[in-house]
Amino acid sequence: MPFIISFYQTKFGELWEKSLSDLIKETIFGVLKEAFLDINQIDTIFFSNMLAGILENNLHSTAKISEIIGKNIPIFRVEAACASGGVAFHLANSYLEANSEKTVLVLGAEKMTDYSPEEVTLALAGAASGEEQEVGLTFSGLYALMANFYLQRYHYTEESLALVSFKNHFHGSLNPKAHFQNKITVEKVLKSPYVAYPLKILDSSPISDGAAALILTNDKRLIKKAKMKIKILASAVASDTINLSQRRRLDEILATKIAAEKAFRQAKIKKRQINVIELHDCFSIAEILAMEDLGFWKKGDGGKIIKELPTMLGRSNLIVNPSGGLKSAGHPVGATGVKQIGEIFLQLNNQSGKRQVKKARYGLAHNVGGSGGTAVVTILGS
Amino acid sequence: MPFIISFYQTKFGELWEKSLSDLIKETIFGVLKEAFLDINQIDTIFFSNMLAGILENNLHSTAKISEIIGKNIPIFRVEAACASGGVAFHLANSYLEANSEKTVLVLGAEKMTDYSPEEVTLALAGAASGEEQEVGLTFSGLYALMANFYLQRYHYTEESLALVSFKNHFHGSLNPKAHFQNKITVEKVLKSPYVAYPLKILDSSPISDGAAALILTNDKRLIKKAKMKIKILASAVASDTINLSQRRRLDEILATKIAAEKAFRQAKIKKRQINVIELHDCFSIAEILAMEDLGFWKKGDGGKIIKELPTMLGRSNLIVNPSGGLKSAGHPVGATGVKQIGEIFLQLNNQSGKRQVKKARYGLAHNVGGSGGTAVVTILGS
Repeated sequence: MPFIISFYQTKFGELWEKSLSDLIKETIFGVLKEAFLDINQIDTIFFSNMLAGILENNLHSTAKISEIIGKNIPIFRVEAACASGGVAFHLANSYLEANSEKTVLVLGAEKMTDYSPEEVTLALAGAASGEEQEVGLTFSGLYALMANFYLQRYHYTEESLALVSFKNHFHGSLNPKAHFQNKITVEKVLKSPYVAYPLKILDSSPISDGAAALILTNDKRLIKKAKMKIKILASAVASDTINLSQRRRLDEILATKIAAEKAFRQAKIKKRQINVIELHDCFSIAEILAMEDLGFWKKGDGGKIIKELPTMLGRSNLIVNPSGGLKSAGHPVGATGVKQIGEIFLQLNNQSGKRQVKKARYGLAHNVGGSGGTAVVTILGS
Repeated sequence: MPFIISFYQTKFGELWEKSLSDLIKETIFGVLKEAFLDINQIDTIFFSNMLAGILENNLHSTAKISEIIGKNIPIFRVEAACASGGVAFHLANSYLEANSEKTVLVLGAEKMTDYSPEEVTLALAGAASGEEQEVGLTFSGLYALMANFYLQRYHYTEESLALVSFKNHFHGSLNPKAHFQNKITVEKVLKSPYVAYPLKILDSSPISDGAAALILTNDKRLIKKAKMKIKILASAVASDTINLSQRRRLDEILATKIAAEKAFRQAKIKKRQINVIELHDCFSIAEILAMEDLGFWKKGDGGKIIKELPTMLGRSNLIVNPSGGLKSAGHPVGATGVKQIGEIFLQLNNQSGKRQVKKARYGLAHNVGGSGGTAVVTILGS
């Protein structure tokens, strides 16, 4: 069974002084250093990036990474919109299941803030369907459709959404790598400008630069001498229609449900054994839907449960987005899925500093592409 | 051990009436029909595409394919420039090595002719380094540097290059799916306009639309009842520096050498057992370099050997690019690597019609990204 033995992430944020290539270099050598490994011990690299093709006409990153490391090993680039990182991890894990005594580096990186918000918003819309793009639907708009449907169907107000951002910014204030490290109040969220009704600017994750990497291995000697290690209990991917109009309902992400059910079957643990979750809160509504679709909360109950903030640090034995989530820790899209798994790795190794979840034994990471066309669920155990 | 049990390709060429989505749909249902399978028998899909992000702001194809097939199965998109198809096949094969009794569809598709040659040339340059792009080096220019070096170092003329195009157009004239089905003379090649000295327009593969798909399985029941099947003996990937300026020599593609050596070790067969090769002749010089780097011809001898045309249909027991290669059969970049393996599949099943290689028992496919930053070598056996 493969183990994770190392994690590194750059600070997430507006890293104007660093290029994509700089972020990649820092992160590859950072994750190797964390585990006291050198590049010759890496058999292959899986690389996640979404936007470099569109934003900077930058493809074929496999060869670009080969030049950085000075090695001729196989390197693979994966793209599944904002789920690219989770998918890269899944394929790396599958690669280890096919090959014994190997060590794989999973890298996610994205450079977004060198471009105008309009350019980035349009590029991100490439993860939606052609029809959705043609009518001018951006991702704020797509998630706003889901938020409106949910709030009206189950009779909640925008306060339920605001509480997600409040909690995640509190968590982010404890994370030195987070894009935003400021606490915010529910009132501030509610008074922030609308992006797409009912979603406001403070319901939305930011445009960030950043990179993250993990080292996975099934090499027994490396596992034995690793100072930190976590078992990969499950990794599952599901897909769904690209168009929201083709979904059977707007108050669930079906791909999340399917991936979660598959992952829990693989992991052979119960939901109540999970102590820490990093989930895909690209917008506040997404956290509520995810908690329901992952099977932790009953469908429609999320808007009520969040009012008690049970998933905030110190409040229960199931903490959600201790890193600050996408909202506060930032969302460099290709890096997000890798960083989520990395945060669980740190938590289960009791290395999360001020944001450490007490007695964290099992953790789950949940990464979504677009409006839910791809979902990846990863379960780790200490 | 995984088998290939089905292949389908669209016609390659200027398919103005078809969108990328149309090509994907035709090819998925085409490859299923060839094998008398339905979509419920497919466990996952690996999809290869290079340019849709840049050319049509079209990412997250995993969810777009999910909508076409109406299924929530895992779907993966891979990009490694013009080697995307070979890499998608490699990961699909690895997936089968990790999972028993599974069936995987490998799909490659590219839509290029809706855009101007300038737009496509710039997008393709995304597979080169930022520095190479900045100084205005296109892929014709990069391969021209290699061609000049080779011809001068080993004292050959442009006629050696022209013979590659002559042979491949002859083969393409026998392939009803080829982009170009016209024979050309060596004189015509030599008189065609220069694109980047010494490479002329008729030394260069065209801009094409097209799609291709394979079905791979390790499900014993499916293998048993398949009307066509071929064993996957080896699949190997290697990477190299993105910048030509960082290579130790300009008359070889090191990634091809490394991938070929690894593949032959895996396959446990000798080079002389190979009867048919589909290799990456994006420019005529690339076929000569590939024959040397794959280990079939001694380095520097290719310019002389090609004068006897031993690899032309009917001339020997080692035929190269019977489909017409990229030059004549066309080069829809994301589809090329899949179609190459498909051609070997047809040849080893004795289903290649007028371009059938006699007594073909073992075959090799060779797919390259950019100027050689990625290479994939696949060996199949009947």
